[in-house]
Amino acid sequence: MRYALSLSYDGSQFFGWQKQAQGVMTVQETLENALSIIAGEKINTITAGRTDTGVHATAQVVHFDSDVHRPLSAWVRGVNAHLPDSIAVWHAQEVDAHFHARFDACARRYRYVLQSSPVRTPLLYGRAGWTHYALDVDKMQQAAALLLGEHDFSSFRASQCQAKSPIKTMYQITFSGSPSFIKMDFYANAFLHHMIRNIVGALVYVGSNRLSVGEFADLFAAKSRLTAPPTFMPDGLYLTGIDYPEAFGIIKPSIPEWL
Amino acid sequence: MRYALSLSYDGSQFFGWQKQAQGVMTVQETLENALSIIAGEKINTITAGRTDTGVHATAQVVHFDSDVHRPLSAWVRGVNAHLPDSIAVWHAQEVDAHFHARFDACARRYRYVLQSSPVRTPLLYGRAGWTHYALDVDKMQQAAALLLGEHDFSSFRASQCQAKSPIKTMYQITFSGSPSFIKMDFYANAFLHHMIRNIVGALVYVGSNRLSVGEFADLFAAKSRLTAPPTFMPDGLYLTGIDYPEAFGIIKPSIPEWL
Repeated sequence: MRYALSLSYDGSQFFGWQKQAQGVMTVQETLENALSIIAGEKINTITAGRTDTGVHATAQVVHFDSDVHRPLSAWVRGVNAHLPDSIAVWHAQEVDAHFHARFDACARRYRYVLQSSPVRTPLLYGRAGWTHYALDVDKMQQAAALLLGEHDFSSFRASQCQAKSPIKTMYQITFSGSPSFIKMDFYANAFLHHMIRNIVGALVYVGSNRLSVGEFADLFAAKSRLTAPPTFMPDGLYLTGIDYPEAFGIIKPSIPEWL
Repeated sequence: MRYALSLSYDGSQFFGWQKQAQGVMTVQETLENALSIIAGEKINTITAGRTDTGVHATAQVVHFDSDVHRPLSAWVRGVNAHLPDSIAVWHAQEVDAHFHARFDACARRYRYVLQSSPVRTPLLYGRAGWTHYALDVDKMQQAAALLLGEHDFSSFRASQCQAKSPIKTMYQITFSGSPSFIKMDFYANAFLHHMIRNIVGALVYVGSNRLSVGEFADLFAAKSRLTAPPTFMPDGLYLTGIDYPEAFGIIKPSIPEWL
């Protein structure tokens, strides 16, 4: 039987999603250990989005196979009882044997939360990006609008990115919040490695008048990291949803009211 | 010269405000160490509200004396450079030599953030109180309204409370947010030890139909902890402001937009 789980985690407590060498705590390994206790056998998971160190999730999706019979609540509350406070499964469902959390994902949603204030805020440490520059949100929105549609995103691609193609389609970028606490929602078919953090780094330059919208357009067209501003911190990045074809019946998350 | 500082901190990283025996990290000791580095002499602080372990602050106020001459920015950015990410000073001002952060405080404001959800939320761990019960906010508001005005709050007073009198005046209790993420703002001349956490504990019983509004009224009138529900967790409690007479010119904080 194949199962899909929806989970959330505080990424500041982990060295990213993916299993690594011993002695490094990752979300995947921590989750698989808890699942294996409930299953009584080794469980391996496949995830939709392999988040980096410090990146959070409110709605990550994984699938796994197990032939042991457990009520669905065992895959939620039972598993949670074996997870640290920094991870929780909030939904479990049986899925078609052909469902694949990664290959069937047709779009991803991320939110970046960005604080602009003269002094850093302790209660946002690890939870929001921070700049001491005042930000011109209108200019940031003008620059972000240039990213909509199908483009070569090489200018915002990490050198270690393993994607086959740098061409992705950005469906929507939505700004909310206020100039001192900006929430940016990114919705695309897929994202390159560090793509959102690199975009946010450049948007902060635009918002603080260190880069004009025209210069932003030029660096995007250059398809190179060479002239692009540095990668922004992971602290404000949250994976908020994965879209799948309706046929699979995967539960649709909404952005939590507290984010 | 006497100075007043406004500061914020993540209480989950400390064993409360007050200096204690060696080996226990408190906000006061951490702050005084940083101030002493900037002053080049030992600085002692007096605070308005001695918060417990796990309780946060967005606008704590302290005063201290120093005859060394430093620009005000040194007491903000200079001090912050010597503080961990979990504390930040956000305002410094010179004050009248008679100003006393504790004795001149005429009212205190706290917010309690309470999440109701079937599954715990990792990103709210240490940041919000949590109950898996669904809550009837109307009933909670009816019960809270009984607390307004001058009353003997012994039913919500911790046994170790050192206040001279259990009689306090509650000016206002305001509910905002939603039933699954309730924000309760408490505004009183002063609070007894654990008073808000004890009130929230009882309000959660009312909201989850384990206590009627009438029973809440009875236990409040009983002036005893004996029949009161248990103290609620500190995680959701934030000190959001201290009121002083206008004459002192202490900066007035507002509740941060992210809280």
